[in-house]
Amino acid sequence: MISVVIVGTGNVAQNLFHAFQKSIDVTVKQVIGRNREHLAFVQNKALISTEFTNEITADVYILAISDDAIGTVAENFKDIDSLLVHTSGATPLTAIKSVKQPGIFYPLQTFTKDKIISFDDIPICIEATNNKNLKTLIKLGKQLSNKVVEIDSEQRKKLHIAAVFVNNFTNYMYTIGSDICAEHNIDFSLLKPLINETAAKLNTLTPLQAQTGPAKREDQKTLHNHLQIIKDKHQRELYTFLSNAIKEKHGKKL
Amino acid sequence: MISVVIVGTGNVAQNLFHAFQKSIDVTVKQVIGRNREHLAFVQNKALISTEFTNEITADVYILAISDDAIGTVAENFKDIDSLLVHTSGATPLTAIKSVKQPGIFYPLQTFTKDKIISFDDIPICIEATNNKNLKTLIKLGKQLSNKVVEIDSEQRKKLHIAAVFVNNFTNYMYTIGSDICAEHNIDFSLLKPLINETAAKLNTLTPLQAQTGPAKREDQKTLHNHLQIIKDKHQRELYTFLSNAIKEKHGKKL
Repeated sequence: MISVVIVGTGNVAQNLFHAFQKSIDVTVKQVIGRNREHLAFVQNKALISTEFTNEITADVYILAISDDAIGTVAENFKDIDSLLVHTSGATPLTAIKSVKQPGIFYPLQTFTKDKIISFDDIPICIEATNNKNLKTLIKLGKQLSNKVVEIDSEQRKKLHIAAVFVNNFTNYMYTIGSDICAEHNIDFSLLKPLINETAAKLNTLTPLQAQTGPAKREDQKTLHNHLQIIKDKHQRELYTFLSNAIKEKHGKKL
Repeated sequence: MISVVIVGTGNVAQNLFHAFQKSIDVTVKQVIGRNREHLAFVQNKALISTEFTNEITADVYILAISDDAIGTVAENFKDIDSLLVHTSGATPLTAIKSVKQPGIFYPLQTFTKDKIISFDDIPICIEATNNKNLKTLIKLGKQLSNKVVEIDSEQRKKLHIAAVFVNNFTNYMYTIGSDICAEHNIDFSLLKPLINETAAKLNTLTPLQAQTGPAKREDQKTLHNHLQIIKDKHQRELYTFLSNAIKEKHGKKL
């Protein structure tokens, strides 16, 4: 049995709380948040605390809070003897070096407000400063997911940048697609099967193999036509930039 | 019963052929391709032809060929009385104006070599020059998909551009993610659940609502750190360009 205290009330905290509640080998001893209203997702009110203090003893303290707050909040827990982890992809282990036993428990996923998702396939990227703590985090991770991987702070930084490209920037591509549809009275949902299949292709192909489109096949006529049609200056810039990038990537110079 | 002739041997032709084979209300009377080897997917050899002529009579001729070839190949069929459609998102109806009864039958999806996918949810975007032909295409489309929509050539052009953003450019984001992982010995498959969830979010949120990440929340510290870490000049440019675009989109000027 592993006991945990969750610090935070955001999407990650809520998802971790619900996932741990389902595990028979993990007990959530407390959920700490500044704002009692934001703690409403914890039905058992005895678990709630609005004090960032250390009255409870648990095996692992989990700071599921915004990147900026991690260092400051960790200061409150610098005297505890338990393992204390944060859940951020972008924040190094050194950000919580003030605590006695720092670690990382980073679920590599995008969490949405009020949407509880399954952790089964979510990679849990862990880091610790000794083997005992590493084993605890592996054990904790395996309660949630089939995929627990040790990733050090340097690798995690890079992984986080890769995640920005495939998640944040991809979503921005969806935004442009949605804007173009809205401008021309086209139902954006027509594009959803395409969006899903674009992601699904990666089950059998590398992204390099999966690349298609006018830039890849150097179809100048279509590229030219598209640039004639796109009126928005920013969309034109982006179209040109990415088409050139794809051409270059696939070995064809302009 | 609708009878069709498919002209072409690529991914779209193969997928249409297999889907029509399953329909009891569609008969494929012939599949025409230049190269006999590329016609190997047609098991009934009696259906195969390498002649672009008009010996067979069918209700609908479907040109599932590359955009560049559409105009030229259509010339071969200019004397037939049947409906003749192409399957291209980027090509206007006027490209086949030499035929008597031109139309469009555009399945809005990305097709992969040797991968047969279900048409059930794939939007079939149709266009015709009269009501009779429109009805035929609706009937044909409904044999394959639950989603048959009339889209004229002007709208289809825009839809195709939107598709380039959400499919081709998104896949390029995956490529960069994959490159970053490869460079730092990180398993790219760790990002796949994130990629799938990024697409799945669109079932409940608009892309504008779904946007997350350092650029969206104007987290200068993380943006700065990321740019310090990214060594590749092209990746830096792209990171900067897209982060600025997201900031601007979400109302925050630099």
